[in-house]
Amino acid sequence: MNFETVDLTIQVRPNDLDSSGHVNNATIMEYLEAGRWSWLKHHYLARGQRIIPVVARVEINYRHEIWLEEVRVITKLKEAEKPLYYQVSFEQSIEIFKDEVATIATEAIVKVAFIDSMERTIRTLQDFLDDMKTANELIGLT
Amino acid sequence: MNFETVDLTIQVRPNDLDSSGHVNNATIMEYLEAGRWSWLKHHYLARGQRIIPVVARVEINYRHEIWLEEVRVITKLKEAEKPLYYQVSFEQSIEIFKDEVATIATEAIVKVAFIDSMERTIRTLQDFLDDMKTANELIGLT
Amino acid sequence: MNFETVDLTIQVRPNDLDSSGHVNNATIMEYLEAGRWSWLKHHYLARGQRIIPVVARVEINYRHEIWLEEVRVITKLKEAEKPLYYQVSFEQSIEIFKDEVATIATEAIVKVAFIDSMERTIRTLQDFLDDMKTANELIGLT
Amino acid sequence: MNFETVDLTIQVRPNDLDSSGHVNNATIMEYLEAGRWSWLKHHYLARGQRIIPVVARVEINYRHEIWLEEVRVITKLKEAEKPLYYQVSFEQSIEIFKDEVATIATEAIVKVAFIDSMERTIRTLQDFLDDMKTANELIGLT
Repeated sequence: MNFETVDLTIQVRPNDLDSSGHVNNATIMEYLEAGRWSWLKHHYLARGQRIIPVVARVEINYRHEIWLEEVRVITKLKEAEKPLYYQVSFEQSIEIFKDEVATIATEAIVKVAFIDSMERTIRTLQDFLDDMKTANELIGLT
Repeated sequence: MNFETVDLTIQVRPNDLDSSGHVNNATIMEYLEAGRWSWLKHHYLARGQRIIPVVARVEINYRHEIWLEEVRVITKLKEAEKPLYYQVSFEQSIEIFKDEVATIATEAIVKVAFIDSMERTIRTLQDFLDDMKTANELIGLT
Repeated sequence: MNFETVDLTIQVRPNDLDSSGHVNNATIMEYLEAGRWSWLKHHYLARGQRIIPVVARVEINYRHEIWLEEVRVITKLKEAEKPLYYQVSFEQSIEIFKDEVATIATEAIVKVAFIDSMERTIRTLQDFLDDMKTANELIGLT
Repeated sequence: MNFETVDLTIQVRPNDLDSSGHVNNATIMEYLEAGRWSWLKHHYLARGQRIIPVVARVEINYRHEIWLEEVRVITKLKEAEKPLYYQVSFEQSIEIFKDEVATIATEAIVKVAFIDSMERTIRTLQDFLDDMKTANELIGLT
């Protein structure tokens, strides 16, 4: 249970803006999702076998509007999470930059559960990690 | 302060599904946004002048996966909201149908603030309603 | 080879609008895709086994801007298509309504090829229809 | 009339994938749009006053599926375009990379017209360039 904080830089696309001229609220959820994929990949957890992480709950605060050019998505697993938990929380934030100074535009807590895609049952974080370890060994990743 | 609950039926589009084969989490936020627009329109509050409602916070629980064919988005203003509040909460849910029986797939509380788009200051619900009333009178809506 | 023209009504969602205040060009492609799914479903061709229709080419003319409230997507298979063709063309248009009079906002020709998802080879329209027929018989659809 | 070819690298986002596991056709149109914005910005043409470029027609060939990780969008103005034309064509392609070798996944020709946003009339490329020149001088860009 020794995970790192992962940063991902995302370019804002013209299509991310809605009729307000700012990045749409729903699109900001896509940025957070991209951040979590990046976190999973960084920890060799992106290539699932049968246990799949699914989003169960999101609490998100929109503090500042986002527009072009780019943002930084910061993703970390909440510290106290234990292997036997059925749900874990990610703490995520999105930073924008004005004159190279970072401002937090969005903060979120994202609860993720683990589903056995064959049996349709819930599983623990440890089950997920074990499943990934097996998957990675199969393709020679350790 | 006498507002109704508003239902909106939304067709799921093929593009709403992500690589999991279900409607994407971020897209579900779009459904909620469509529900709130429908609520505003039902109450003649959709055609702003200078005071704009903006989403400040969302708490969303994903209880059940959504896929084709259609969903119902139910939107109501939380009952205790007062005209002098700077933020109000919407309670929203999304229902799916199996054999014509409704199941709640998603529940959310969405906090909305009111911004004066010219002065960039926060305003109350009452300010927003007054601004709308003026706008509607201008175009002959009452 | 006796296919019908299929109409689909689509509600424009707030999120479909981009910073111009009109439905985004890319989103209009989603409307066309929803129209083709509707056409396939109408002809019991939506539930593939191993031969998958994939878009190979689109020619699209944007004649008129689209905004809220709803549009009609009209989808037909081009008449001269023959069972042994490796590609077929759909003719699609999107209509908007002003005072209940329809105006064509978008016209498109969409070429679709058929891919065997297991062998990764191209197949004919007839192969696709045969594959669907087998799939439908398996689930009791005729 | 001396314009350069502009390359833009785009990260594929998890949400760009549809239920086929590949980047959706409509999303690929978003990549092209991001490429054209990048081209406009490179030539100091992104910050319009009253003459707005609008997409009139797209011809797009989908040659290869796209999935994670990133793509390169190449955008150039078609060479023979003249200042008095009411429409100009962009030639765009999207490249994917396997073992650092580029393959063309998508090719498109995008016709753009120029609309006077106040008078709602069509204008020439030269009118658009003149409008931009004025706008840039106003903000000190040359």
